[in-house]
Amino acid sequence: MYCGICHTDLHHVRNDWGITMYPVVPGHEITGVITKVGSNVKNFKLGDRVGVGCLAASCLECEFCKSSQENYCDQIQLTYNGIFWDGSITYGGYSEMLVADHRYVVRIPETLPMDAAAPLLCAGITVFSPMKDNGLLKSPGKRIGIVGLGGLGHVAVKFGKAFGHHVTVISTSPSKEREARERLDADDFIVSTNSKQMQAGKRTLDLILDTVSANHSLGPILELLKVNGTLVAVGAPDRPFELPSFPLIFGKRTVKGSMTGGMRETQEMMDVCGKYNITCDIEVVEPHKINEALDRLARNDVRYRFVIDIAGNSSRI
Amino acid sequence: MYCGICHTDLHHVRNDWGITMYPVVPGHEITGVITKVGSNVKNFKLGDRVGVGCLAASCLECEFCKSSQENYCDQIQLTYNGIFWDGSITYGGYSEMLVADHRYVVRIPETLPMDAAAPLLCAGITVFSPMKDNGLLKSPGKRIGIVGLGGLGHVAVKFGKAFGHHVTVISTSPSKEREARERLDADDFIVSTNSKQMQAGKRTLDLILDTVSANHSLGPILELLKVNGTLVAVGAPDRPFELPSFPLIFGKRTVKGSMTGGMRETQEMMDVCGKYNITCDIEVVEPHKINEALDRLARNDVRYRFVIDIAGNSSRI
Repeated sequence: MYCGICHTDLHHVRNDWGITMYPVVPGHEITGVITKVGSNVKNFKLGDRVGVGCLAASCLECEFCKSSQENYCDQIQLTYNGIFWDGSITYGGYSEMLVADHRYVVRIPETLPMDAAAPLLCAGITVFSPMKDNGLLKSPGKRIGIVGLGGLGHVAVKFGKAFGHHVTVISTSPSKEREARERLDADDFIVSTNSKQMQAGKRTLDLILDTVSANHSLGPILELLKVNGTLVAVGAPDRPFELPSFPLIFGKRTVKGSMTGGMRETQEMMDVCGKYNITCDIEVVEPHKINEALDRLARNDVRYRFVIDIAGNSSRI
Repeated sequence: MYCGICHTDLHHVRNDWGITMYPVVPGHEITGVITKVGSNVKNFKLGDRVGVGCLAASCLECEFCKSSQENYCDQIQLTYNGIFWDGSITYGGYSEMLVADHRYVVRIPETLPMDAAAPLLCAGITVFSPMKDNGLLKSPGKRIGIVGLGGLGHVAVKFGKAFGHHVTVISTSPSKEREARERLDADDFIVSTNSKQMQAGKRTLDLILDTVSANHSLGPILELLKVNGTLVAVGAPDRPFELPSFPLIFGKRTVKGSMTGGMRETQEMMDVCGKYNITCDIEVVEPHKINEALDRLARNDVRYRFVIDIAGNSSRI
């Protein structure tokens, strides 16, 4: 039915990372309804509202697969540009149908619309997983920062507020301040190019989620963390982050990586979204406008995620 | 009596960081005997064998000072090139005497020689603190890596072995392998420029301590960590570390900073060294050979720490 357009799709389409196996069919933020089930599939039936995210296969036997941290299995295969168990190349959600192994399928709560839920399968879980991992679901009142107000960042702000935290958006774009505060209910906004604001924000945050996939230095952002604070990077810039040692060692700070999430926590994230009515803010596009959408995405011209209306159910654009 | 020559001294002498206030008297790995005490000093007396490390003053009132993590007080002043409470510039241990506040003085166990104990005040505590912080004192059997076999690295290997861990040395210098294994009892040795060895070492280590102060990328080193593994950086290269996102996010890895230690844990470290008979491997130099020693240090030509014989007690060189 729907497929979100993730920045990773753009990287693959352009072969930015040198790993694209053409022809490539991108898309790993997929929602739809089940039309067929294999004979051994017991947990899903025809008509179920489901989603498929980044994972297509994993080894099933390692400690990570066994603890539903399949995303850290060293043999994971992704929903597109991966190699499936039968040796075929995987093709993603920019397509009218998708065959997925039942292990990597989650249920979409009835209360969530299928279009605005689609980006949760990547953008949502990518920010949810580190937030859960760092205790934000169970200890409200923390001061957290979200770097970058895009597809990932805006969902992170919603999660942060839903979980009871003080949320500061850190962005290069002063123009996003009003929207961040009024529409997303952010508590504070720091323009990262404004040295006064950055100075005033020093040592104020417990945790920062850096969602930016453009090349950048982590130095100025680290200064915003309290001593012992943690920055979680979830973006994948082409070039390495610059990590100056002084703000790292003087503040005993931590930089962590996190990549999507396991299947159990992806379902948990979906259920949490159902409970708090969290979805993505999207622009729905018809399939023939995908290239145009990718061009706009490359210019960061989207609020906040494009979702392709594969089945022609919407008529918003 | 003695003062170690730390790589930081070289940075300050050369004004590498642009913060040197000349004239500078370096030295923050100082051992000696107390010759005078202030009238309010109750915890030390004439003749006590003591050491002074990196810290000269801190605010005494913040949460870090109150929990003896003075090293993370945002007003700390260092033993040299700092500003003391009375407004004077601090001068370090390349001198015949030193006046220090009793709060920043530790006792040297009777069993330790004063010369080989001196570098423990910086090199020792710098590696001890993150090892303690990451649970290595209480949970033997971890697989740990030490990057760089210099002043810090060789003490880290000794601590790692004393605490019951499997220790791998990671170095650019194949020539150090024999010494690492035979003299320091390291369990394994990886030449970081040998791609086969680096490939074989992937995902094998729980914790890595990176002691290198030359510019380098953390990417290849991170690959050696297991999923969820932690790299602690304690060096301060001139240029930012390169931190590629892929090994960070795919392995959910952590990069942490750590800078020296608090006073309570510095005393604990000294006592631990007394218990396990851990000291630094040193070359003692006379004061008139300091410049020569600094030149050799700049070329990494030292096994493993120069210590200045301030009082002329030794006659090794």
